[in-house]
Amino acid sequence: MIDFVKEDAERVQTLIDKWLTPKAGMNHTQLYEAMRYSALAGGKRVRPHLVYEFCRACGGEDVCADAYAVATELLHTSSLIHDDLPAMDNDDLRRGKPTNHKVFGEATAILAGDALLTESFALISNNEHCTDEQNVFALVAFAEAVGVDGMMGGQMIDLQSEGKSISTDELFDLCMRKTGALITCSCMLGCIAANAPHDLMNAAGEFGSCIGLVFQIVDDILDVESTNEAMGKTVGKDKAEAKSTFVSVVGIEESRRIVRELTTKALACLDKFEKSDAVMRLKDFCIALSERKN
Amino acid sequence: MIDFVKEDAERVQTLIDKWLTPKAGMNHTQLYEAMRYSALAGGKRVRPHLVYEFCRACGGEDVCADAYAVATELLHTSSLIHDDLPAMDNDDLRRGKPTNHKVFGEATAILAGDALLTESFALISNNEHCTDEQNVFALVAFAEAVGVDGMMGGQMIDLQSEGKSISTDELFDLCMRKTGALITCSCMLGCIAANAPHDLMNAAGEFGSCIGLVFQIVDDILDVESTNEAMGKTVGKDKAEAKSTFVSVVGIEESRRIVRELTTKALACLDKFEKSDAVMRLKDFCIALSERKN
Repeated sequence: MIDFVKEDAERVQTLIDKWLTPKAGMNHTQLYEAMRYSALAGGKRVRPHLVYEFCRACGGEDVCADAYAVATELLHTSSLIHDDLPAMDNDDLRRGKPTNHKVFGEATAILAGDALLTESFALISNNEHCTDEQNVFALVAFAEAVGVDGMMGGQMIDLQSEGKSISTDELFDLCMRKTGALITCSCMLGCIAANAPHDLMNAAGEFGSCIGLVFQIVDDILDVESTNEAMGKTVGKDKAEAKSTFVSVVGIEESRRIVRELTTKALACLDKFEKSDAVMRLKDFCIALSERKN
Repeated sequence: MIDFVKEDAERVQTLIDKWLTPKAGMNHTQLYEAMRYSALAGGKRVRPHLVYEFCRACGGEDVCADAYAVATELLHTSSLIHDDLPAMDNDDLRRGKPTNHKVFGEATAILAGDALLTESFALISNNEHCTDEQNVFALVAFAEAVGVDGMMGGQMIDLQSEGKSISTDELFDLCMRKTGALITCSCMLGCIAANAPHDLMNAAGEFGSCIGLVFQIVDDILDVESTNEAMGKTVGKDKAEAKSTFVSVVGIEESRRIVRELTTKALACLDKFEKSDAVMRLKDFCIALSERKN
């Protein structure tokens, strides 16, 4: 399993390097530099990995999923750059390196985030290994997952709820949007790349919805229990900034119970797919995610 | 002519109002409010007007162009919100009202810009009055016009050239990207919405490229010669911030000469279209743009 995560991450790294290369003689190479700095900084590449695995689980070729996979990662990177800005989370450290605005300044960081966001849509639109119908279907799902009712809506709820106590329902709503929507969409994009039937796409979406929550809840737990070194980012910030997290709202034991319950549900979604190596790896991945330490 | 600009602006206003309405019971309505504040603040709506007129000039129906037209305006609004941020142009006044971050705070303004950018892609992807093929074609053109090699690349060059003297070539490169790319694309989107042949789309693009420059050069001239009241934004900032503009690089008389030359070239592009009311109005519009006072 680990090998596949690593191989997919390397494939994504190579594609980003290739696709974010400026043409000779351009005057705006600094924007490329800023985009490349964050997009090539590593990270777990969870979202593209899910795109690839679900494409494989539906019998599709990796090459069909490339553009969709990279799009999820560029979008994620874009959101991290903007999230780290002084006006947002004001973070100095990301993926073990100084944040984008610390290196390039705030103005360039804002533009780099905007340009990565745009590039993610450009990649899906330009995916020549899928039909126009598949690409439009992918774009509609992607835009919904990312936009005002998806990830960005979740970021808004997150901002609004700083320093306030929120209900468990509100916390689920926040997380389903902020972290869950893009992970859910990544699983669906893999199925779309493979031109899979809708029932498989929906099962993939439900799987993604479960592990998206698991991902966030484990993040909240790690923010309390892990170290800067292990995480490659500043931990303990949630508490310092009085943010509502699963740990603060339902407690650490209940958080762990929800992780177990959602993991079981996610595994059940995978039973709808034909048995394959990809499905086996997704099961392992799902379990590893719930037990991760960084 | 004026009536059509006004009618199109009203049509766009109604569509934005309808398309940016949150569903009942949502927790993130503040993000909608911030998006609506800037998107509904008026402005000349030049880009959507061009989408509609070129769609009409190619024999298309307005309803086919609606989503593309609104997309250009939301994208433009997104760029204004981010441009006005303290880390960028640090502007307090836009379209005669306090800028987005002055009303909603910087964090929400960043998110509102991101969400409007995303929504513009969502609208094009969801345009049910065009085929998947048209929508993908439109998305590819739009993403290129907006992204790292388009508008955002131009914004980067603009940032880099603050306080420096730049060559005339660099200034044209800056403007073709920063202002020109989206205006060029708007003209092309109208043709795509009408499913027009490629030669017309290219002529529309060349027209857009000319008037995009005219628009920027006249803006530079007005920044020197107009008032806050007439413009609805802070004027005289270019000089105060030592920005390279056409006025500072080639002088005001040469700027006026270039405006005349480009206007003649733009009018010639329209001769490739069959005579129609829309084409006549585009000619008037082109002349009015070169003579505008705000």
